[in-house]
Amino acid sequence: MGFSLQEVVEKASKSGKKRLAIAVAQDTEVLTAAAKAMQVGISAPILIGDSKLIIAAARQAKVSISDMEIIHEPDRQLACVTAVKLINENRADILMKGIVSTSVFMKSILDKENGLLESHTLSHVAFFESPYYHKVICVTDAALNISPDINEKVAIIKNAVAIYHRFGIKLPRVAVLAPVETVNTKIEATVHAAILATMQKRNQIEGCIIDGPLALDNAVSTNAAGHKGLISEVAGNADILVVPDLNSGNILYKSLVFLGGAVSAAIVIGARVPVVLTSRADLDKSKFLSIALAGALV
Amino acid sequence: MGFSLQEVVEKASKSGKKRLAIAVAQDTEVLTAAAKAMQVGISAPILIGDSKLIIAAARQAKVSISDMEIIHEPDRQLACVTAVKLINENRADILMKGIVSTSVFMKSILDKENGLLESHTLSHVAFFESPYYHKVICVTDAALNISPDINEKVAIIKNAVAIYHRFGIKLPRVAVLAPVETVNTKIEATVHAAILATMQKRNQIEGCIIDGPLALDNAVSTNAAGHKGLISEVAGNADILVVPDLNSGNILYKSLVFLGGAVSAAIVIGARVPVVLTSRADLDKSKFLSIALAGALV
Repeated sequence: MGFSLQEVVEKASKSGKKRLAIAVAQDTEVLTAAAKAMQVGISAPILIGDSKLIIAAARQAKVSISDMEIIHEPDRQLACVTAVKLINENRADILMKGIVSTSVFMKSILDKENGLLESHTLSHVAFFESPYYHKVICVTDAALNISPDINEKVAIIKNAVAIYHRFGIKLPRVAVLAPVETVNTKIEATVHAAILATMQKRNQIEGCIIDGPLALDNAVSTNAAGHKGLISEVAGNADILVVPDLNSGNILYKSLVFLGGAVSAAIVIGARVPVVLTSRADLDKSKFLSIALAGALV
Repeated sequence: MGFSLQEVVEKASKSGKKRLAIAVAQDTEVLTAAAKAMQVGISAPILIGDSKLIIAAARQAKVSISDMEIIHEPDRQLACVTAVKLINENRADILMKGIVSTSVFMKSILDKENGLLESHTLSHVAFFESPYYHKVICVTDAALNISPDINEKVAIIKNAVAIYHRFGIKLPRVAVLAPVETVNTKIEATVHAAILATMQKRNQIEGCIIDGPLALDNAVSTNAAGHKGLISEVAGNADILVVPDLNSGNILYKSLVFLGGAVSAAIVIGARVPVVLTSRADLDKSKFLSIALAGALV
């Protein structure tokens, strides 16, 4: 049970074109992904950045941008601010980072007066199709929160669970990862996991089944969980992997893609709209899938 | 450039049978791996544990133990102490954990009077053959050190580098992993990485090339490193991945094996002899390769 990334693309396509504001759009790969998303009816890109450079990048990428709106703003920071403004004025539905540093881009989102912040924690949610797992698996948070505390982890879980609900999975299985399956007070990840699992049992976190602490092998392998004698509704069948911190999340993300043959789609949620925040090293396909994921959620 | 795990097996085999003391040996999988190692001339197992249970486990595993020495010691803790004693009395060359908790087993090694401690830090060193990388890659420390400080990381690096030297690799490339490639004082892993790279440049760590901070993708992918414009002798070609901490190391280890199709061999070094410390969830092949790795190093 689950959903495929192809289904995400179809869902995005069916729900109609979303206006995609791309901040600092003068990048061949971003333009390639945006053009593909437009082609399959997912997005109507609005390119914000240096118009000369945007046209040059499109030419280099052999991408036609004649049907895309261009807003000329050569300053990178102001391009980000303009993109955020488009969202707030309901002139765009999704925000995407182009060729600008994450910190400059995030600053425009986090701005208290003119940003996109809603009440909860922003978090990064990544979905993977791995040749070694039987369904899409989600990793969170692999990019934004350095060392989330319990309350931040609750928000991180809720953010990811809400996406599963949107995709029709009523009770996603959440594994809170740690290096061991037992509580060890010297390892905070195990303590956090025990707290989060209990909070779910007490209905402080709803709409999912949480178990932890679980090491990654127990979370994704029934065999490994069996060896440990774990009785768990989550072990071997996890949908969502909640990582201890940024160190471990980033390594898991990169390991799945670069040493595991997985394809990924990732967005930032918790803001007023889904935000596409791919990195230069991501594959074109991942950039496209990430736009589709955002499109399926608005 | 590098070495294969098959070459490790051959090296172990050529250097002759090593006496392998197995603490609490009544486990089908451990006996299977030990028997295979004996068969190919790598080890002469000494089985310490409950002799009745050992014989029963051997029967269940369909393994002949008639040529193996058995030392009857039904108490698990004492079985560990006995195994360590065999090493200290030069009656065994390698130590292996059987079906006993890691904490009980390690206690007998760490015992100040009767243990196996040498001056430096004990560390776990794991080698992987991944279908997605062009050579064996080493991950350290994924099992012992929870949150190593700089001095412990220096010892962890030296332990791993020493193994590469034994295998004829004079200057292994060491990537100190972090979630980003730039120093961010809010992320200790990036600070540690910068310090360790500088220490190598100042010859405080010798016999290797260290670069960091590097995110995992930059460490193993020339493409990813190129996207970031990194100029590095290590990026895309790392031999040794130094992880920030246990959280991230354990996740990387499990990800490579359970979501990356990799085969592993792992030992603990820094003690008087190499210690084989596989987990129940490891594949039989990994247990055998770990014995071979230890055998190749004594």
